[in-house]
Formats: sequence, structure tokens, C-alpha cells
Amino acid sequence: MKIYIIGIGLIGGSMGLDIKALYPEATIYGIDTNKKHVEEAIALNVINFEGAITDLVNADFVIVSVPVDTALRVLPEVLDNIGEHTIVFEVGSTKNPICEAVANHSKRRNFIATHPIAGTEFSGPSAAITNLFDGKTNIICEVERTAFKLQEKALDLFKSMGMRIRYMDPKSHDKHIAYVSHLSHISSFMLGKTVINKEKDEQDIFDMAGSGFESTVRLAKSSPAMWTPIFKQNKLEVVEALEGYIANLTQFKELLIQDEYTAIFDEMQSVNKIKEILNGMHVKK
Amino acid sequence: MKIYIIGIGLIGGSMGLDIKALYPEATIYGIDTNKKHVEEAIALNVINFEGAITDLVNADFVIVSVPVDTALRVLPEVLDNIGEHTIVFEVGSTKNPICEAVANHSKRRNFIATHPIAGTEFSGPSAAITNLFDGKTNIICEVERTAFKLQEKALDLFKSMGMRIRYMDPKSHDKHIAYVSHLSHISSFMLGKTVINKEKDEQDIFDMAGSGFESTVRLAKSSPAMWTPIFKQNKLEVVEALEGYIANLTQFKELLIQDEYTAIFDEMQSVNKIKEILNGMHVKK
Repeated sequence: MKIYIIGIGLIGGSMGLDIKALYPEATIYGIDTNKKHVEEAIALNVINFEGAITDLVNADFVIVSVPVDTALRVLPEVLDNIGEHTIVFEVGSTKNPICEAVANHSKRRNFIATHPIAGTEFSGPSAAITNLFDGKTNIICEVERTAFKLQEKALDLFKSMGMRIRYMDPKSHDKHIAYVSHLSHISSFMLGKTVINKEKDEQDIFDMAGSGFESTVRLAKSSPAMWTPIFKQNKLEVVEALEGYIANLTQFKELLIQDEYTAIFDEMQSVNKIKEILNGMHVKK
Repeated sequence: MKIYIIGIGLIGGSMGLDIKALYPEATIYGIDTNKKHVEEAIALNVINFEGAITDLVNADFVIVSVPVDTALRVLPEVLDNIGEHTIVFEVGSTKNPICEAVANHSKRRNFIATHPIAGTEFSGPSAAITNLFDGKTNIICEVERTAFKLQEKALDLFKSMGMRIRYMDPKSHDKHIAYVSHLSHISSFMLGKTVINKEKDEQDIFDMAGSGFESTVRLAKSSPAMWTPIFKQNKLEVVEALEGYIANLTQFKELLIQDEYTAIFDEMQSVNKIKEILNGMHVKK
């Protein structure tokens, strides 16, 4: 089995580690414009060898795990180079632009659009970890546009990694993910900015920060190179989500200015049901 | 040694557990308006017996760990009842109102104003855990207004629990904590509200939420009864912090509308330094 990983970072690298564990006979080739990442990935045993896009004709799987703007350019090129039985998947956080980019490609049926909802705030080959996908949701878009035998092959791999499969059309994916993922990243980045700006001359103040602050700003460690193109590709949905968030924050501020503490209590109590929602997440496997 | 805990929840209860472990000879009395909490705390071995405010004359330590509005009323009453060598401390998230409430009390020197920066999003006696305070910062305000011998006694206890002590005036405490704690709670509650409102008819959508969303909304599980009076007492600072946060989110949204992706990248990259700041938090002990 020959696996090609294009973009050897957190997601691609973690998939490489899982595939090595699941299929000891697999050979994993890595392709990355950053040569240091290729060397690092080999040293970390995340991949076996460096690969080339012109070799893809013999690939069983090609995993495209690059920033979503790069994916728009790389994915058609990958499809141009693959063999008849190769299955290609892409793992980015936006699905509609990528599905549109390959909609009319002659090898469209060799492609499966996925979004494994897994990750950490870290990036690069050293961020790769085993079992990252175990128990996580993998959203698959336009499954009917992938050849049936290749769907099966991909689903077997995802299920071996412990993933739970959900099907969704790409526009719905992008709409909902703006709320449950993209908005969280912006809220976290802007929270970090607000506090850093306020306390810029008083580094000691961060001694006052507890685990609550840390949890809330964790995503502000994320990679700008990965996230800028996500926000660009999902601009309309992200702007709408941000507008809703800003409106809710503004209303909360107004309640505070007007000393409406009963309403503030009720607001918080009503959001407390997120407890059950998050508990639901944990038992979903 | 006789310890009285008034308000047996996450903070008071966790202190009880640590004191039991550190001083096996200590007897711990609990006082709580919620009789179920008293029973639960005895069953969980967080306290030994129910106590009464009229017994405080023999107390070595009195820990006041009630919502901050209740503290304004309870603390003077506690000071009215204590003995000459009793040391009282309060652990809430606002310090200026509490210091003002007892500024002219005849027993002011028996009181030490503290804010242990520790906690979880849970509440009640069942939320009490051991070692909650180990490695955490305890902010002490107006230390010079506490009798020297009683300061020593309190500091010994805090240090035995593993806490790192920082001194600060109450107004500065309330100003900075609005940014590094209170704002995080509002950002989290309003993020939860925005997503719940958008997805109210589509519970399944939360399957799309990953660990990033979970981390960012964790604080939205917090107790409204605890947080409403904190926001009330620190209203001016919290409103200012919220205004800064809303302005930053609005600016980010405008950059997105205007397709200013280089500026968006730079914004995120500049906030990425929160990594080093948070790492600094971890080595602070």
C-alpha cells in the first residue's frame, strides 16, 4: 500500500502515524514545499520517504492536508496525476470552495471531500500525534460524487482510525462550521488581543490569569497561515456569525450598563444548557 | 484547630479537603444556607460538622466562600462574632467592594482579603477537589491592614496548600481581573449563546463541534448565581473590557468585509505571542 501525504503537518502527519500503526506494510511518502518539514517528518518517523507529485499514479491513497487556499490549486494537479484506483481526500475546514474547484474534473470520482473534526492548536510535523482521530467526527460532503468502490476504501480507513462518519452537503457544512469552529477561533484571537493590548506594559498581570483564561484563549495559538485562507473562503458565513456574536456581547454590555442583573442571570442560566450539549459530544462515539 | 467554612462550594470545599489532609487534627465546621449542601459536604467528608455563626469565637480560621454579594453582608457579621485570635479570609473574585465593606470594622485587623486564582466551571460541595490550589496564585489585598501575627498564620496555610502569593491593591486587582478573568467568562457565555441560538433546531450540529469549541465555551457552564454579583460589583471595569473586546471583534469583521487578508494574518500572528505568555504561566511556580 502506497500512501502520499501532501502537506505534512498536524492533520496529515497524524494520519501518517495512524496508518503506520494500522497497516505496517504501508509505505508513506510525504510531499511538502517546506523541505525542513519533509526532513523532520522522516526523522520523526511520520513518513518513510519524500515523494513527488509525478509519482502519484501508483498511489493507493493521497491525503491533501495543506492550507485551504493551497488546496484549491494543488488538488486539481493531484487529480491530474493519479491512477485509476487512487482515492484522494482533502481535510480542510471549508468544503464548498474545494468541491467547486474540482466539480468538473475528469477524475472527480476519485476524490472524497472530508473534514475530520480533530486537531490541536499546534502545527507542523512535530504536532503530529497518534490516535488524534479516535472518536472524532469526520464530515463527508457530496459522497454520491465519489466512485462507490473508492468510497468504501476511504470509509474503511476512516473507521479504522476510529472516526464516526457524518454526511452533509458542502454549503451546510460551511455554514454550520462557521459557528461551531471558525467563530471560536476569532473569539479566542480577539480575547487574546484585548488582554495583551491592555496589559502590554504589565507582563506580571498574566500571573493573575487562571485556567479559565487559558482555556478561552487556547485557540489564539493557532496558525495564521492555516486560518487566514479559511476565513477568506468562508467569509460570508463567518461575517454573519461574528455579527451575531457582537450583537449578543453588545446586548450583554447594555444589560450591565442598565443594571439589569436579573436579565444577566437569566441569560447565563439559559446558556448553561451547553453542559448537556457538550456532554452529548462526549458520548457520541 | 477549628476551621469554619461559610459557603461550602468549589472553593470553600476544596480548602476544607486540603486542610484535612495537611492538619489531621483540625475540626472543620461548615455553614451554608443550603442545608442539602451541609449534608452533602458531611457525606463527602469535606467538613466534619455543621457549625453556627454564633460559635465563631473559638475559630482559628474562618473561610468566607460565598457569592460576592452575600460576602458584603456576611463578612461584617462574621467579624462581629469572632475571637481575638481568629483570622478570617474571603476568597471572591472582586476585592474592592469587600475591602470597603469592612474598612472601618473594629475587627478589620482579623481579616485578610484574598483571591485564590483557582477553580473549575463546576460548583457546590461535590465540585470540591484536593490540591486545587497547588501551584496557583493567591492575590492578597491591603495586607498591611491585617494584624502581623494573623497574616503569618494565613500565609502559612496558603503556602502549605502550595499557593504562590502576590500582593496588590484592591482597585488594581479588580481592574486587571476584569480582563484576565471576568471578560473570558462573558466571551464564553456569549459564544455559547450565539451558537445555541443559531443551531437551536439542529441539535445534531453539535456533533460538528470539536475540542476547540469545547475549550472556548467551557466557562459558559459556570454558575450564574456566582457570576452575576461579580459582574455587578465590577461593572465599570467589566464594561470597559467588553467595549475593548467588541471593538477588536468589529475591527476584525471589517477587515474581513474589506478582504484585508494580510492585515488579518498580521493580527493573528501578533496575538500568537500568547503562547509564550501562557507558557510563562506554567513555569510560574
